[in-house]
Amino acid sequence: MDISPLQKVRYAYQPKLPAILRKDITSIEAVYGEPTGAATDADAVKALFPHTYGMSRVSFTEGDNKAVTAQRNVGVILSGGQAPGGHNVISGLFDALKAANPENTLYGFKGGPSGILQDSYQIITDEFLAPYRNTGGFDIIGSGRTKLETQEQFEVCAQVCKKHNISALVIIGGDDSNTNAAVLAEYFLEKQHGIQVIGCPKTIDGDLKNESIEISFGFDTATKTYSELIGNIERDANSAKKYWHFIKLMGRSASHIALECALQTQPNVCLVSEEVEANKQSLVSIVEYIAKTVSDRALDGNNFGVVLIPEGLVEFIPEIKALIDEINHLLAKEEVAFNALTDSAQRVAFVGSRLSKSSQTVFSILPDEIQKQLLMDRDPHGNVQVSRIETDKLLSTMVETRLKQMKAEGSYTGKFSAMTHFFGYEGRCAFPTNFDADYCYSLGYNAFCLIGSGLSGYLSSVTNLCAPAEQWNAGGIPITMMMNMEVRHGSKKPVIKKALVELEGKPFAYFAEHRAQWARKTCFTYPGAVQYFGPAEVCDRTTVTLALEQSK
Amino acid sequence: MDISPLQKVRYAYQPKLPAILRKDITSIEAVYGEPTGAATDADAVKALFPHTYGMSRVSFTEGDNKAVTAQRNVGVILSGGQAPGGHNVISGLFDALKAANPENTLYGFKGGPSGILQDSYQIITDEFLAPYRNTGGFDIIGSGRTKLETQEQFEVCAQVCKKHNISALVIIGGDDSNTNAAVLAEYFLEKQHGIQVIGCPKTIDGDLKNESIEISFGFDTATKTYSELIGNIERDANSAKKYWHFIKLMGRSASHIALECALQTQPNVCLVSEEVEANKQSLVSIVEYIAKTVSDRALDGNNFGVVLIPEGLVEFIPEIKALIDEINHLLAKEEVAFNALTDSAQRVAFVGSRLSKSSQTVFSILPDEIQKQLLMDRDPHGNVQVSRIETDKLLSTMVETRLKQMKAEGSYTGKFSAMTHFFGYEGRCAFPTNFDADYCYSLGYNAFCLIGSGLSGYLSSVTNLCAPAEQWNAGGIPITMMMNMEVRHGSKKPVIKKALVELEGKPFAYFAEHRAQWARKTCFTYPGAVQYFGPAEVCDRTTVTLALEQSK
Repeated sequence: MDISPLQKVRYAYQPKLPAILRKDITSIEAVYGEPTGAATDADAVKALFPHTYGMSRVSFTEGDNKAVTAQRNVGVILSGGQAPGGHNVISGLFDALKAANPENTLYGFKGGPSGILQDSYQIITDEFLAPYRNTGGFDIIGSGRTKLETQEQFEVCAQVCKKHNISALVIIGGDDSNTNAAVLAEYFLEKQHGIQVIGCPKTIDGDLKNESIEISFGFDTATKTYSELIGNIERDANSAKKYWHFIKLMGRSASHIALECALQTQPNVCLVSEEVEANKQSLVSIVEYIAKTVSDRALDGNNFGVVLIPEGLVEFIPEIKALIDEINHLLAKEEVAFNALTDSAQRVAFVGSRLSKSSQTVFSILPDEIQKQLLMDRDPHGNVQVSRIETDKLLSTMVETRLKQMKAEGSYTGKFSAMTHFFGYEGRCAFPTNFDADYCYSLGYNAFCLIGSGLSGYLSSVTNLCAPAEQWNAGGIPITMMMNMEVRHGSKKPVIKKALVELEGKPFAYFAEHRAQWARKTCFTYPGAVQYFGPAEVCDRTTVTLALEQSK
Repeated sequence: MDISPLQKVRYAYQPKLPAILRKDITSIEAVYGEPTGAATDADAVKALFPHTYGMSRVSFTEGDNKAVTAQRNVGVILSGGQAPGGHNVISGLFDALKAANPENTLYGFKGGPSGILQDSYQIITDEFLAPYRNTGGFDIIGSGRTKLETQEQFEVCAQVCKKHNISALVIIGGDDSNTNAAVLAEYFLEKQHGIQVIGCPKTIDGDLKNESIEISFGFDTATKTYSELIGNIERDANSAKKYWHFIKLMGRSASHIALECALQTQPNVCLVSEEVEANKQSLVSIVEYIAKTVSDRALDGNNFGVVLIPEGLVEFIPEIKALIDEINHLLAKEEVAFNALTDSAQRVAFVGSRLSKSSQTVFSILPDEIQKQLLMDRDPHGNVQVSRIETDKLLSTMVETRLKQMKAEGSYTGKFSAMTHFFGYEGRCAFPTNFDADYCYSLGYNAFCLIGSGLSGYLSSVTNLCAPAEQWNAGGIPITMMMNMEVRHGSKKPVIKKALVELEGKPFAYFAEHRAQWARKTCFTYPGAVQYFGPAEVCDRTTVTLALEQSK
């Protein structure tokens, strides 16, 4: 058996397009709206993007676009971490390209952005594409983390495109990749290379969004997959009634994934990094909050529960951030002496004795395991690898210690036994939900329509996503309108502004309003496995976050 | 939102029964087959079960059973770890009981076997039951691990049953619980209490089976849930092409879960504890096998892969088993001195210096973390908690060390980066698959038919499970026929023989035949999420293990 039964039937799924994209492709015409600005720092962004700053938003309407049928070759690149639906972006792009002109050719550059630099590609044909339609993963051509950011790289891109007569590139990626797509588009215009660049908003982290990009693709499938598992664990906790489960969730800096999963599963605790930062919460106060929840529930005889922890949490706790900065600085300075120590206990002692007094205090309250993790697992630059810190174990261990104190003081009489989990890789390559399958196919189809309208430096935009696909809007936004200036590696650069959880937004407000009740009582909800064939209310709904954001 | 969309629609699912159980309940008649024996040790088992040894197998056919309508109260108990479908056993039992006589009452004893000892119960009504139909978890009445095994406990059970006029108990549990159910049935007959006892075969571990119990319930759903996750991780590995994922899977001693997941997902490596034991494989040889697979794949440029590890593995590695026994013995003897040491490094040194030479060698090659885990996390009896040993980390760390040696020797030139996972709690309370929903409902319905036929000491048995539900057979087997004598806590006891993976069986043979290819090539299959509404080939198929076992 090489193909699972589900995979076989998913091949036959026909993704749903917005009504306008269902028209004959020669009658899909671009309509130009108001000129745009930048997120902030308009003057600086404008100066850096003389050709692509201030372009108009674009939407599609029925009209005339015979020019779309001109023969053209297009290249496509998958950039960065996997997200469910990438194969469908390519499917939509391919189908539109072939609908426009069967002589058109789609080049898939292999292994991410490095594929174009090395001129390593796969010609996408119908036969080649068929076994990837509506499936998860980026294995069709692979992905990679090489960044296209230097002029030398841009020039290689131009030469490779010219060699294959490629007149447009579609870059499927997150905020960084789309920032680079904008810079590349600007470069090609500046040098008059005649190569268009279109971006597609991909990331399970959900941190690439604004009013024209309501959701990044993959977020829906990934959060539903994690919520399935969280719900199953909640039900287990509520059946066995003896464990507290601490679950860390992928999502980089932003807490969108944790928040969406909380809205879907109603756990007892969900930490939100953005709130921790806004309130300057200390590690001790977070531990206290969880320990209090545990002890309150124990009063009702409920010695079980579920805690959700966003991956980026520790970076948002002020004193931990300061500690990590100090360790990075210290290890850079005393690299030789430190590396001479092979024993982890010696390393801990070495660092402990050289920290500032305040960081020393913070370091000393961390569990042994975490102290060692901070010092042993470092990245190629010698820095602490924040994403590798087992925050789930850190918090469960510290909560356990705190509860022991409380028990000694007589303020806690329950039982506490913790299990830890980390979910990330389980969701990045799941079969896309019907929503992501439809949305991604539409994004890819739409990307070709942007190309066919002669545009460059645009992000494919499909909106009104809480409505049925038929009613979705299709169009594009200039990537520059999402930009601001940020300090990266010591100098100011134009980048797409990362969308963090807004504490004033409706999804967080809903959560904040209910969390006290979810904490004390058992209000778990069990979303179950992603469904593809059942009633629309089960199969086609997108995230609770988006439903709340778009609610009146 | 307190009920998920999937949960709402699952309430409406009508589980499928075998054709015979769809008849009017008064026309379902028991047919008696050949008398049975025991698995082994027949004389000893017979002597211990004078009233219930040697009873006949029972099947149901259309006939006459007016006696089934006599008014009766029945008690039900969920025993041990959660398994998807428990709620449906209760639903089937309830529906049959009410079909026989609307005056019948079902008592659900709360929190497992301790519920009957404490006379803590819930009367199951249609309204009460409705929100649990076709859902996962044991939260309807809770479960527990108290064992019913002493005469004092049996007498309390009898008194509680008499108080409520309960004339039959249904015990839903694994091998231990059903062993105790048989002893209880024997006791009630011996004392002429007039209380019947019927067991139902539950366990996700899959180790309770024989020709009349083709599968224990929950195994299908749990393995499909784990396979969904493994497939997603495989697809991620094959997209990112940079990680080896080491995945430990629940399942106690038996490797049924790991093997079934391997058959569903075709990973590069799947260890099978039963084979490790049969071949007396050492830890070093297992590490060598995985390292060789990693290095062979690296020759093809494939620096990624997936390794499945059964939970019970370490107990089957002879020298680890010896080491653990020695540590348990040593710590029991030197408890005071050992407990006086609070530092984990001191504890490691203390134990290391007191082990036999051979165990010292084994202990010394274990990663630091694992050495500490062996000594820190002990059960209430002071024994090493084998199930808590992070075998995923143990193996990935040792493989990494071995690959470094190979690299130094020039026999390996790839890159190795490992991620570890443990899946268990994610699958025990999933929404039951259609198969488990149907099978469990049938087991419960059938259990009442056994009661209505006046039987006791029987296990509810539904067979021919690879065919559509309509064609399933319904009946019962005497629990004693599954028994043998085993040494438990120093004395010989009658117990249900645990079904381990048979190395001569078809599922293992299929795996053994294909594993070399799966190891070197990338043959991953992606089962995706459990489906409830799609085509039958996607939604209603049970395990690959059972399909192979029943194949000609």
